[in-house]
Amino acid sequence: MTAAATPDPLSDLPGRIMAGEMAEQPAVLRRILAEGAPAIRDVARRIAARAPRFVLLTARGTSDNAALYAKYLLEIRLGLPCGLTSMSTTTAYGARPDLTDVLVITVSQSGGSPDLVASTRAAREAGAITLAVTNNPGSPLADVSEYHIDIMAGPEKALPATKTYTASLLALYLFVEGLRGGDGAPAQVLPELAGQLLARQDEVRTLAARYRFAERMVITSRGYGYPTAKEAALKLMETSYIPALSYSGADLLHGPLAMVDNVSPVIAVVTDGKGGEALQPVLDRLRGRGADLVVIGPESQVEQASAGFVLPTRGVAEEVQPVLEIIPLQLLAYEVTIARGQDPDAPRALAKVTETH
Amino acid sequence: MTAAATPDPLSDLPGRIMAGEMAEQPAVLRRILAEGAPAIRDVARRIAARAPRFVLLTARGTSDNAALYAKYLLEIRLGLPCGLTSMSTTTAYGARPDLTDVLVITVSQSGGSPDLVASTRAAREAGAITLAVTNNPGSPLADVSEYHIDIMAGPEKALPATKTYTASLLALYLFVEGLRGGDGAPAQVLPELAGQLLARQDEVRTLAARYRFAERMVITSRGYGYPTAKEAALKLMETSYIPALSYSGADLLHGPLAMVDNVSPVIAVVTDGKGGEALQPVLDRLRGRGADLVVIGPESQVEQASAGFVLPTRGVAEEVQPVLEIIPLQLLAYEVTIARGQDPDAPRALAKVTETH
Repeated sequence: MTAAATPDPLSDLPGRIMAGEMAEQPAVLRRILAEGAPAIRDVARRIAARAPRFVLLTARGTSDNAALYAKYLLEIRLGLPCGLTSMSTTTAYGARPDLTDVLVITVSQSGGSPDLVASTRAAREAGAITLAVTNNPGSPLADVSEYHIDIMAGPEKALPATKTYTASLLALYLFVEGLRGGDGAPAQVLPELAGQLLARQDEVRTLAARYRFAERMVITSRGYGYPTAKEAALKLMETSYIPALSYSGADLLHGPLAMVDNVSPVIAVVTDGKGGEALQPVLDRLRGRGADLVVIGPESQVEQASAGFVLPTRGVAEEVQPVLEIIPLQLLAYEVTIARGQDPDAPRALAKVTETH
Repeated sequence: MTAAATPDPLSDLPGRIMAGEMAEQPAVLRRILAEGAPAIRDVARRIAARAPRFVLLTARGTSDNAALYAKYLLEIRLGLPCGLTSMSTTTAYGARPDLTDVLVITVSQSGGSPDLVASTRAAREAGAITLAVTNNPGSPLADVSEYHIDIMAGPEKALPATKTYTASLLALYLFVEGLRGGDGAPAQVLPELAGQLLARQDEVRTLAARYRFAERMVITSRGYGYPTAKEAALKLMETSYIPALSYSGADLLHGPLAMVDNVSPVIAVVTDGKGGEALQPVLDRLRGRGADLVVIGPESQVEQASAGFVLPTRGVAEEVQPVLEIIPLQLLAYEVTIARGQDPDAPRALAKVTETH
């Protein structure tokens, strides 16, 4: 970034750092496919040879949502049982499980959070196969892990992570496909389609007007789209401070539905595939309650909602749709924040590398 | 219940069903310790003989929070790697992982939810050791599982689950201790202390006044107290409809902290032990931001907060404190709901057995 040296006529625009990084996403995805994929396949081939029986995923914040996406891929595409790590069991309580045959994947854009480094080191000592997925090959996390995947997103300056999220998803997809000997060809369409989505910012701005005065939001999905719902909620909270609650569609029916009425708008992320099908009864219940329902999904789903944003899903495999789904929701977090007179680049209280121990 | 036959002079009091079930908790805990423990130890002994290497926990809603408590116990006390199931990978996507050596624990008060039954059946067919933890030994879930633990809470009529939560925690604690050959003696103090907590409803009513007009709440904890934070948030949402967001203390620093300010009250659940120690830096950050911080925890912690509720933790092992911690928070959900003029027994939209598929 040369902004400090060269005066930038746009430098006083709120959110310009976040906007710039969102706009880089097609190029980042293209770079991973063109330059990163062979190294990712090589890591996958070497790990597959060790035949892990169980996978533990460790991450926080946005990276935790990328890890959850990987959990769906590993369970569905590979039939590998998975868990998300409760990190404090290692770092606070000193648990030292036997991790023979266990693959431990740690996802972190900075690779610098001390607790992630400590828990990965402990996992390696306990016999795990350790893999770091980071945006910094020179980071302590990459260093402490046996294997490393570089997500190649370039420096991320904005506090709300955007391009490192989609980059992590794509890298994890290529890794999981590599584990099963696939080439990840369904991902080839993503850079072009990501570019088309980014060009539709005006549509998102219209949607954003609806949430300007919202006191809370509910975001729901099921299957592959559930990590998208969680990441969208996090993005909205980080930038606009609107309390955004994310639930899998099934969990929403087990309690929090009581909170949904005509003052709690609902965003549903509907993947085109089995996850979207499994969400239908939830959408029916929401419509039956008169919820303000906005759908991010295929055209046939958007038509039945109060409003929405049509995703290009024709010919796009369900398992890669999350890389696209989040883009209008990143734009939405950005636009809602601007509409509320706040600056998406300056969230209160956040530091880029969070020093949790 | 004979309320329909015999007119009850209190029958028009809002929340009387929930209040009655909360009040039963000491008796339920006593019953599990006196009558249930031998059967739980027997199940544990038989499962320990099969030496599971991994544990997957499956549940929804309140039971999911009990399952998370079990995950901490299994990881910390037994060093067994664990995961929480993403159920749709089985029920919507048809994933059929190899579950040899895997213990699959399904927690459900009713034992009747079709997706839990389907995913447990699939797990058993895939080679898993299956254990159902339910309040209904005659349920389809108990029937489809190889092993069953009855949480003996008696019929639960209120829609917000209370006594089945603490009963599940205690049953899971005794089970995990049984796996390691322990007798669970630290749990013996719980019925008496639970009774003392319930007798302090006036203190909770004073706290509740603070949240009557709250538009949102944040609840945080770390380690063993984290499931308590999640369950407290769920209880508040189900009864009062206040959007209550729960975060592990470490996750709170990775983003949502931006949302916390003097209009977002924070409740911290501070266990007396390593979890509470690991939470200290988060409490310091919250105090530094001037957050309205209410602590549920030991006296030394409550003294440093804006307000709080002192838990009797002296001589109580950290791993059983969650059975007590949730009680003042159940009372809080109840009292806040009453203060807002709503009826905790009549949440909108909830059915007791949720038919997710």
